[in-house]
Amino acid sequence: MYEIGVVYRNIRRANSDIAARLCALGTATVHEAMGRTGLLKPYMRPIYPGAQASGTAVTVLLHPGDNWMLHVAAEQIQPGDIVVAAVTADSTDGYFGDLLATSFKARGACGLVIDAGVRDVRVLTEMAFPVWSKAISAKGTVKATLGSVNVPVVCAGALVTPGDVIVADDDGVVVVPAALAQKTLETAVAREAAESDKRAKLAAGVLGLDMYNMREPLQKAGLKYID
Amino acid sequence: MYEIGVVYRNIRRANSDIAARLCALGTATVHEAMGRTGLLKPYMRPIYPGAQASGTAVTVLLHPGDNWMLHVAAEQIQPGDIVVAAVTADSTDGYFGDLLATSFKARGACGLVIDAGVRDVRVLTEMAFPVWSKAISAKGTVKATLGSVNVPVVCAGALVTPGDVIVADDDGVVVVPAALAQKTLETAVAREAAESDKRAKLAAGVLGLDMYNMREPLQKAGLKYID
Amino acid sequence: MYEIGVVYRNIRRANSDIAARLCALGTATVHEAMGRTGLLKPYMRPIYPGAQASGTAVTVLLHPGDNWMLHVAAEQIQPGDIVVAAVTADSTDGYFGDLLATSFKARGACGLVIDAGVRDVRVLTEMAFPVWSKAISAKGTVKATLGSVNVPVVCAGALVTPGDVIVADDDGVVVVPAALAQKTLETAVAREAAESDKRAKLAAGVLGLDMYNMREPLQKAGLKYID
Amino acid sequence: MYEIGVVYRNIRRANSDIAARLCALGTATVHEAMGRTGLLKPYMRPIYPGAQASGTAVTVLLHPGDNWMLHVAAEQIQPGDIVVAAVTADSTDGYFGDLLATSFKARGACGLVIDAGVRDVRVLTEMAFPVWSKAISAKGTVKATLGSVNVPVVCAGALVTPGDVIVADDDGVVVVPAALAQKTLETAVAREAAESDKRAKLAAGVLGLDMYNMREPLQKAGLKYID
Amino acid sequence: MYEIGVVYRNIRRANSDIAARLCALGTATVHEAMGRTGLLKPYMRPIYPGAQASGTAVTVLLHPGDNWMLHVAAEQIQPGDIVVAAVTADSTDGYFGDLLATSFKARGACGLVIDAGVRDVRVLTEMAFPVWSKAISAKGTVKATLGSVNVPVVCAGALVTPGDVIVADDDGVVVVPAALAQKTLETAVAREAAESDKRAKLAAGVLGLDMYNMREPLQKAGLKYID
Amino acid sequence: MYEIGVVYRNIRRANSDIAARLCALGTATVHEAMGRTGLLKPYMRPIYPGAQASGTAVTVLLHPGDNWMLHVAAEQIQPGDIVVAAVTADSTDGYFGDLLATSFKARGACGLVIDAGVRDVRVLTEMAFPVWSKAISAKGTVKATLGSVNVPVVCAGALVTPGDVIVADDDGVVVVPAALAQKTLETAVAREAAESDKRAKLAAGVLGLDMYNMREPLQKAGLKYID
Repeated sequence: MYEIGVVYRNIRRANSDIAARLCALGTATVHEAMGRTGLLKPYMRPIYPGAQASGTAVTVLLHPGDNWMLHVAAEQIQPGDIVVAAVTADSTDGYFGDLLATSFKARGACGLVIDAGVRDVRVLTEMAFPVWSKAISAKGTVKATLGSVNVPVVCAGALVTPGDVIVADDDGVVVVPAALAQKTLETAVAREAAESDKRAKLAAGVLGLDMYNMREPLQKAGLKYID
Repeated sequence: MYEIGVVYRNIRRANSDIAARLCALGTATVHEAMGRTGLLKPYMRPIYPGAQASGTAVTVLLHPGDNWMLHVAAEQIQPGDIVVAAVTADSTDGYFGDLLATSFKARGACGLVIDAGVRDVRVLTEMAFPVWSKAISAKGTVKATLGSVNVPVVCAGALVTPGDVIVADDDGVVVVPAALAQKTLETAVAREAAESDKRAKLAAGVLGLDMYNMREPLQKAGLKYID
Repeated sequence: MYEIGVVYRNIRRANSDIAARLCALGTATVHEAMGRTGLLKPYMRPIYPGAQASGTAVTVLLHPGDNWMLHVAAEQIQPGDIVVAAVTADSTDGYFGDLLATSFKARGACGLVIDAGVRDVRVLTEMAFPVWSKAISAKGTVKATLGSVNVPVVCAGALVTPGDVIVADDDGVVVVPAALAQKTLETAVAREAAESDKRAKLAAGVLGLDMYNMREPLQKAGLKYID
Repeated sequence: MYEIGVVYRNIRRANSDIAARLCALGTATVHEAMGRTGLLKPYMRPIYPGAQASGTAVTVLLHPGDNWMLHVAAEQIQPGDIVVAAVTADSTDGYFGDLLATSFKARGACGLVIDAGVRDVRVLTEMAFPVWSKAISAKGTVKATLGSVNVPVVCAGALVTPGDVIVADDDGVVVVPAALAQKTLETAVAREAAESDKRAKLAAGVLGLDMYNMREPLQKAGLKYID
Repeated sequence: MYEIGVVYRNIRRANSDIAARLCALGTATVHEAMGRTGLLKPYMRPIYPGAQASGTAVTVLLHPGDNWMLHVAAEQIQPGDIVVAAVTADSTDGYFGDLLATSFKARGACGLVIDAGVRDVRVLTEMAFPVWSKAISAKGTVKATLGSVNVPVVCAGALVTPGDVIVADDDGVVVVPAALAQKTLETAVAREAAESDKRAKLAAGVLGLDMYNMREPLQKAGLKYID
Repeated sequence: MYEIGVVYRNIRRANSDIAARLCALGTATVHEAMGRTGLLKPYMRPIYPGAQASGTAVTVLLHPGDNWMLHVAAEQIQPGDIVVAAVTADSTDGYFGDLLATSFKARGACGLVIDAGVRDVRVLTEMAFPVWSKAISAKGTVKATLGSVNVPVVCAGALVTPGDVIVADDDGVVVVPAALAQKTLETAVAREAAESDKRAKLAAGVLGLDMYNMREPLQKAGLKYID
């Protein structure tokens, strides 16, 4: 399924300004604006609370227990990129630590999303380099087998194409295909605007039942109140 | 097993003062006072460290991927209630976010316990609205299918009857049936009092072996010391 | 497999100074220095971020739902020890709380590693008593069945012999057999020294591809760059 | 939550004839007839393919690692009963083997549903004594702590009241409250009758799209066909 | 990420003869011939031992708890197809049973691969209609929300494009992109031929160490024999 | 923790006759005779129902995704051995298939216990070569990294020393240290003899309550019967 042993140097990145603006809206809003698709599995968690990042995806395909291609990927990073790493089999090893983070940061990466483990999380937290992973593990890896860089990968159940927008925060990670980024931003902005007004009403004690006009459809659906 | 499509408006709530006092004692002590029963499965975790809440249960039965009934439940909330939500099948979707939290808070709810996912956790943390859940997920839900409000539900392996006392903190979530609340409080208070004294002794270097008179029963059970 | 009902009073502890110095190097470095072995399963997590500890192992073998032997173990603790507890079957109960922590601390223990659950985590955090566990649970235990103290145990997939060095931090828990402690320290120190230099280079934008001379082996392995 | 240390000798059993007839209809049909409720978690699996049983529930509440109450329960079994066992904490130990099965069978039990482990599965299979469990494990248990018999229990996420009808087969386990048994049977029989006709049509190549008149609602919902 | 609410009627199917021949070679050999890629997660298991199938993929995207699109998919099935169903969130419900199987079989489908649950497994086994799923569950679903048919889907961690070859047996499920099917077949056939010869040698007592000339590379890697 | 890159050629095997006799008694009885210790985690399952094996352990330590050392182990197999394989990190890959099974069988091995995945299970079943594993997966492995043969390993949570007796059947896998084999056999035989008599009594309707004289201890523990 995957092309192995290749590095695509030229990828078409989504507009970086859109990526930045999607970040501020948050994954929940972006995911809704995508028609409730694009979310990676919820086992992907940030290594520290409050982590937030968005960027354009540089993808990496790794073999279990081998992080060689993360070094290859570093050279392909441009400022504003976020690295998305998949492994060809389930693994919780720690493929990434403070040295690679130092290198990624120097290249301009704003974060890492990896469907595996990460280590040196105390230092990464001090560096404010955000990582979303499925595990934390001191277990190291070797550098022996070729994978690929910038091929489409399935990461935590979602297809990520190089150049896609990645938005990540406490609620998880969403992938927005480059071609849908502009439209998703518009939908998300509109949704967010509508929410501010709703928030104020709800805070004032208005019920969602009334604000969303739910009483009639609930009655039609057969809801019964019993005193 | 469940009644579907009904909302019970009048439930018999446990004494709210008892609920508040149980909160201060903590789930570990309350659970012991209950004869070591009543604890929800330990996969139920607070969304931020230090979260603490107790209250009387307003229960909600949801269908997978559908949070309609949480809006119906909002109207049934009285100050001092804590909402307990179960789903008819395993799900990690994010059924609850900052808008619903704003509404619940305006109604006087002091927290949410949900055997599913929650989102907007950064905002919920800023709001200091505590939630215990089995997952965090940006994945949204629809509003299409009837469940119920204030029927007995099984939440994370424990039976919760509307009006029961719920006590939740970093150690998990305990349900105390309304009828047992007073007695549980008394037992828990007595237990807590005994613990203060023990704590001082242990801090001074007294061994539990001596304080609890364990040496004889250990010897009888056959324990052997080898030098 | 296990000796049941015995307490070994005299164990050969690794050098405590080595244990302290390994702690500063961190589990990732120590685990690498061990030839990438000795790590407990990554489901073992600290109860608060930033937890760090190292010490010599006092081991405990528990039966499911029974923490009697932790009291027996307390008497065997010497300053600088860390307690390592295994259970004969999978369990997430809370075997350890603030009272036992008070006792362990008074005896000089610097932490606990337990392949089960722990409770009173808010108080333990305030006490700065670090625990690595696989679960947090208010569920208490009884004191009825004999296990053992200071026998070799398998804890979270790793064999721990009494007196071994345990190093634990945010990245997990590593066991270093007493006989290998000195050599592991030397290897780890050398590794750490090398890393400082690498870190500076990577921060300056040097690529790992060049710093580690990876370009030739990658080419030999057949890596292809596509523009 | 649970009453501990009690055995209710007189329980109101559902009609045994209804239980038998529900068995023939299968769990999927019965669960639909219950409005899609009453199913135990799908991790409950039969120990051999083709296992089928139904009966009236004798419930047992066990403590982790302790099967004493299964012996107490044996005396309460009447012909046509099925034993439903819950444990107060997660456990995969083998609480039940061929000796208890021999005893249960002699008392007239037609099966066991246990939210834990079972052993001697080869012999149980030869005896054709069906068990639904979440694990198979040779690990034995002690007989030391009181639980209860014939109190309501939560088993694999479902509330089971003594005397309820239990229907179990390859697809899982459903609990039908005694009060709903007659009505559930009628609904299930009607549903089954309708399915026979549908099966014949579908086998002849008629599409569900036409048989269920789905084309119009699909179009209304906005489904688009693209050539 | 996904297109929702569309049905692609014309897909480019891989050569059906190749699909059939790949089936005989088995998933392990096919997966090796693909360079060790293309395998779905190993939690995908056949509902009965000995199940074997291969075909061209008709893909379905479902919403949790809703099997409406499986009926839409039935119309798109051609003889030799195998249906591959993904769900937009984790779910173990039983989306597929004997009625749909009857319909699928009448349309010429040779199996189903579904990243969720299935029911009526006893009848499906009698029908010899093979299904690979992650769960078995009597829990039924509704027919209310649009998904899609014949869009690319991520199923159990693998990207499946409509028309791809699917090969499934006791060892799991492999997806072979249509464009790679011919080449994969050739590689797999060659591999299989080589294995027959090896099997005979190994059965005669020849060691893999000698047959594969491993002794020298093992020695070079530093392997030490200790008497 | 582990010695890497070594093969111990001379191991002290337990008496093979004892191994054979323990097999007939079954894992449940042997595990009881061991004082309820020695059982591997219950996720270790046979690849076909009715699998039974016992033998002396040849141990293998593997690296994730690499089965090289299984070939090295083949040469160390003597008739009556059973191979026990551990991996240094969690993995579900298929490290073992029909070719290695052919070789192992030719060398006299009577089975494999592997804390990872296995493939070609249909052929292995036809060959009647029993395997206990935690997964079935078509995913292949490489032959690139040294592990060890005949060093002590932790396999599925249990310490296995080369030459130990391994007993495995439908209920799981038990390890009996060579030094305890004779005594364990005697205890197990005595236990089995006692069970025959009990089985007959229970089949005749005698209750365990009476046969084991449980009524008095139950009453003392406070059990109450309610009519």
